[in-house]
Amino acid sequence: MRRLKATISYDGTLFAGYQVQPGERTVQLEIENVLTKMHKGNQVKITASGRTDAKVHATGQVIHFDTSLEIPVERYKKALNVQLPRDIRVLEVEEADSEFHARYSVSGKRYRYIWNCEEQQSPFRRHYTVETNGIKPDLEKMQTAAQFIIGTHDFSCFCAANTSVVDKVRTVNALNFSWHDEELHMTIEGNGFLYNMVRIIAGTLWEVGIGKKDSNELQLIIASMDRGKAGKTAPAHGLYLEKVFY
Amino acid sequence: MRRLKATISYDGTLFAGYQVQPGERTVQLEIENVLTKMHKGNQVKITASGRTDAKVHATGQVIHFDTSLEIPVERYKKALNVQLPRDIRVLEVEEADSEFHARYSVSGKRYRYIWNCEEQQSPFRRHYTVETNGIKPDLEKMQTAAQFIIGTHDFSCFCAANTSVVDKVRTVNALNFSWHDEELHMTIEGNGFLYNMVRIIAGTLWEVGIGKKDSNELQLIIASMDRGKAGKTAPAHGLYLEKVFY
Repeated sequence: MRRLKATISYDGTLFAGYQVQPGERTVQLEIENVLTKMHKGNQVKITASGRTDAKVHATGQVIHFDTSLEIPVERYKKALNVQLPRDIRVLEVEEADSEFHARYSVSGKRYRYIWNCEEQQSPFRRHYTVETNGIKPDLEKMQTAAQFIIGTHDFSCFCAANTSVVDKVRTVNALNFSWHDEELHMTIEGNGFLYNMVRIIAGTLWEVGIGKKDSNELQLIIASMDRGKAGKTAPAHGLYLEKVFY
Repeated sequence: MRRLKATISYDGTLFAGYQVQPGERTVQLEIENVLTKMHKGNQVKITASGRTDAKVHATGQVIHFDTSLEIPVERYKKALNVQLPRDIRVLEVEEADSEFHARYSVSGKRYRYIWNCEEQQSPFRRHYTVETNGIKPDLEKMQTAAQFIIGTHDFSCFCAANTSVVDKVRTVNALNFSWHDEELHMTIEGNGFLYNMVRIIAGTLWEVGIGKKDSNELQLIIASMDRGKAGKTAPAHGLYLEKVFY
């Protein structure tokens, strides 16, 4: 048996999320089905860096699995892509150490969140960006507010209420904004993220950008450790898991 | 009654084309349904500059219709967009002369065709570009071949066999290529296009670009007036109706 690490990309639009759920189309299920077929019916389980929710996209999700097949990595990638549905693509397959674990070996992740601020709505970006009906936020205010998030904090305020995680201290290393034509991108990098953390941060900073919240409030929101003080959870389809660090 | 002209955009992915067909989801049907509802059940018919096939997109299709409603054009646009499905967007509504006719008044059209030449397949552009599996064509050869198409010719060679049109003489005013990162765009402008003409031109020039046909062959292909001499019809989902001229 050898362990392989694969970097994958998926369009989350038609998936009920990453993780297998009975009766639902999920990314994990599609990949496991193909791998199991390649292994002549012997079930192959894959492990990801973490799950992503329904409609969330990935441009750099990482998985690992063990295989008995002696196919070189480049051909392994091609074999998977030929059989996978077109909304999942394998970007790379690499040999991994037997100790490598897609989830437990993670040292950090980067996510991207995209708002489409075009005044004129377009039918083409509706699944891939969150439309703001032409509203352009005050980027400077969002950047000021973002400074309070960078660093090591208890991020309870940015964690969905229904979570079982106890230790909510995480480190955010970078949080940047950039315009790409009329699309506003937020990238956030950290050593780990709580459930819905990126979407709640996106939603909170958006409220700062449109003047519903003050930049300095961020300090109080974080100190409160109260989810109720932060902004709304931004929609899933604007979110991309971009890179997993090991 | 007043006549209105509307410019619309649609993502062709989930449509069986523009024109109403029994039992199919079409752009015309969706728009007529909304207009008929706005007119309290009195059926409203729309007329487009021309039909587009299943999976073909539009960024600047034009329609006209007559309405008894006295709504200002800007509000008319909003009322339509609120009720239309998200894969159709109305970009503009204008007052039109009673003689204006979306189809008969057309003086020309511009189409765009997009090939995605990225080596690394992506799950995000699969419905909006035609993937070439990393093959990058020889643009110079395509441009040389394109010069034979520009001008006024009998374009029988670029017309789908099953057409009832008799006069196949059309004028192509412009045919240009440009790279947008790793996507190759072809734009073509002319006074009118035969059925499948843009897709057959795209398919033929592609064959020139990958060395399957010689640039100079284009002259012979056009002179032959034989559809069999031209290249394959390029896939529908790479095509956009971009602008209609009046």
